[in-house]
Amino acid sequence: MKKGRILTGDRPTGQLHLGNYVGTLANRVKLQDEYELILLVADYHSLTRKIDKEHILDTRQAVRDVVLDNLAVGIDPEKTIYYVQSDVPSVCELHLLFSMLTTTPRLERVPSLKEIMDAEHIEQPSYGLLGYPVLQAADILHVRANLVPVGKDQASHVEVTREIARRFNFLYGDVFPEPDALIGEVPTLMGTDGSGKMSKSRGNAIFLADDAETIRQKVRNMYTDPTRIRADIPANPEGNPVFQYHDAFNPNKDEVEDLKARYRAGQVGDVEVKNKLNAALQTFLEPVRERRNYYASRPHLVDEILAAGAAQVKPMSEETVRLAREAMGLSSAIVR
Amino acid sequence: MKKGRILTGDRPTGQLHLGNYVGTLANRVKLQDEYELILLVADYHSLTRKIDKEHILDTRQAVRDVVLDNLAVGIDPEKTIYYVQSDVPSVCELHLLFSMLTTTPRLERVPSLKEIMDAEHIEQPSYGLLGYPVLQAADILHVRANLVPVGKDQASHVEVTREIARRFNFLYGDVFPEPDALIGEVPTLMGTDGSGKMSKSRGNAIFLADDAETIRQKVRNMYTDPTRIRADIPANPEGNPVFQYHDAFNPNKDEVEDLKARYRAGQVGDVEVKNKLNAALQTFLEPVRERRNYYASRPHLVDEILAAGAAQVKPMSEETVRLAREAMGLSSAIVR
Repeated sequence: MKKGRILTGDRPTGQLHLGNYVGTLANRVKLQDEYELILLVADYHSLTRKIDKEHILDTRQAVRDVVLDNLAVGIDPEKTIYYVQSDVPSVCELHLLFSMLTTTPRLERVPSLKEIMDAEHIEQPSYGLLGYPVLQAADILHVRANLVPVGKDQASHVEVTREIARRFNFLYGDVFPEPDALIGEVPTLMGTDGSGKMSKSRGNAIFLADDAETIRQKVRNMYTDPTRIRADIPANPEGNPVFQYHDAFNPNKDEVEDLKARYRAGQVGDVEVKNKLNAALQTFLEPVRERRNYYASRPHLVDEILAAGAAQVKPMSEETVRLAREAMGLSSAIVR
Repeated sequence: MKKGRILTGDRPTGQLHLGNYVGTLANRVKLQDEYELILLVADYHSLTRKIDKEHILDTRQAVRDVVLDNLAVGIDPEKTIYYVQSDVPSVCELHLLFSMLTTTPRLERVPSLKEIMDAEHIEQPSYGLLGYPVLQAADILHVRANLVPVGKDQASHVEVTREIARRFNFLYGDVFPEPDALIGEVPTLMGTDGSGKMSKSRGNAIFLADDAETIRQKVRNMYTDPTRIRADIPANPEGNPVFQYHDAFNPNKDEVEDLKARYRAGQVGDVEVKNKLNAALQTFLEPVRERRNYYASRPHLVDEILAAGAAQVKPMSEETVRLAREAMGLSSAIVR
């Protein structure tokens, strides 16, 4: 017996990296055993961001990459439903109906709107960006998910969904569950340049799809304390991305503790620390890359996974939309 | 050969009245011969207005009333496509895609938003009300209409549609026509109380469905100049709703001119003016009411008209959405 239905997902932004793994993918791998997991590849949501003629995303390739990376880390299509948002367009009707149930000022107060605008240098939000939480509500509620994994600072996302469900149920009768936020840690990983969060756009990422040699080079060039010019200078492993990666990916905790102790004492060179990190990352990423390559070289398998997912989600979505329409008395058909 | 495809329509607000006839219906009756007319009953749009538990519209009944009134005045289902918005939900996907192509500040500047909020005492617009012009754009463009009849002060509605079509075509390639506003007079009719525009909510309307006795009473109780206490007092027919109705509905122009001349000279009583107006309105409304009753008592005919309309509009809409999706590269299916 599964403990509930979870909706989670990603905008297809291209290849995923170790930061994405630590932040969300690792958690999904665990959740899929306890919960019924539905993994949304949110291609409509991609369109809420800046669109210009020169930077039109190759959505289909980006969708593929996200799916491949999720498959690669072990999110098992036998356990988890994968589907692409635009393969189940009935969500758009729920989005329109929900758009009547929340106000413009309410959406303007959602903290992530400002954050996205700042991060992506968006001066004037598109109407769709303002309505991002309304589409999220439709994503969550059209499959009647009752749990949504979020970071501590993201509970406000689910709050709009809960408000919309409540308002609908109050006005038209009980149709929607009020989903709960499944609040968890969303650990972040520093970039290889030590300058902040790992991110594709900053060019400081190790991708799940990187080959062995690329990983080796990225580790070799990783930022370490620039003041530590010799191996016998004692230094602090805290805040050092090399040690943060050891903590996240080196399963040999004794080795990591030994390296940290010697680092503090000025008894280990960066080369040794990095070589051991490289070994740990290669061990972690090799099967990931193999699984990725397996699916990448068999595109019909990905087609089948996505088609099967859409085929599972469609009837859920259409039934939910039918219930909502019925409760609202929509369509020209008179029930006699 | 028709001169183009027109989309026009009404929110289903219940029974229509003489003011609606003069303002829009009369024009439709003429347009249907020259153009391919598509008549939208915009039930989704109804939801953009104030919704509260006590005043949930019986949408289906309201849809019926609007359709019956359009049929009643002679908008011929053999010439004109009638369809209910929620019977063709593919428009919702276009609405979502279009929501990415206009900005929130742009929509906030649409003059009708403020007007609707004032008129309907809406303090905080729902997200859907702000997006009203985006849904209109989807309504117009999913059937690839190239003309939209609007009043002089409503050209801004079509402007948002034109901007969205242009932006889409610029970003993704030529998919949409840029529809033109078919700007015409939208004459208004005073209410029977002479206090302003005829409107359902003001209770000063003569409905197309009113029976003969109701019409007679409403005419008898119509506002006239309260200072004119005797028939021999000269008075001005301008601004007098009784004479405005004569102008609009009495085909005997000689009779109307004679009444006006005698009114100015103080040679006619209100009773005679009203009796002649009643006769003219009865002559106008009797066949309208008969046609209305004909369809009202044959609900399967209305069902068939709406089902046939939806069946005509659906393939247009779905083909348009398909073209838009293809241009944008949506869906998981890789074109190989």
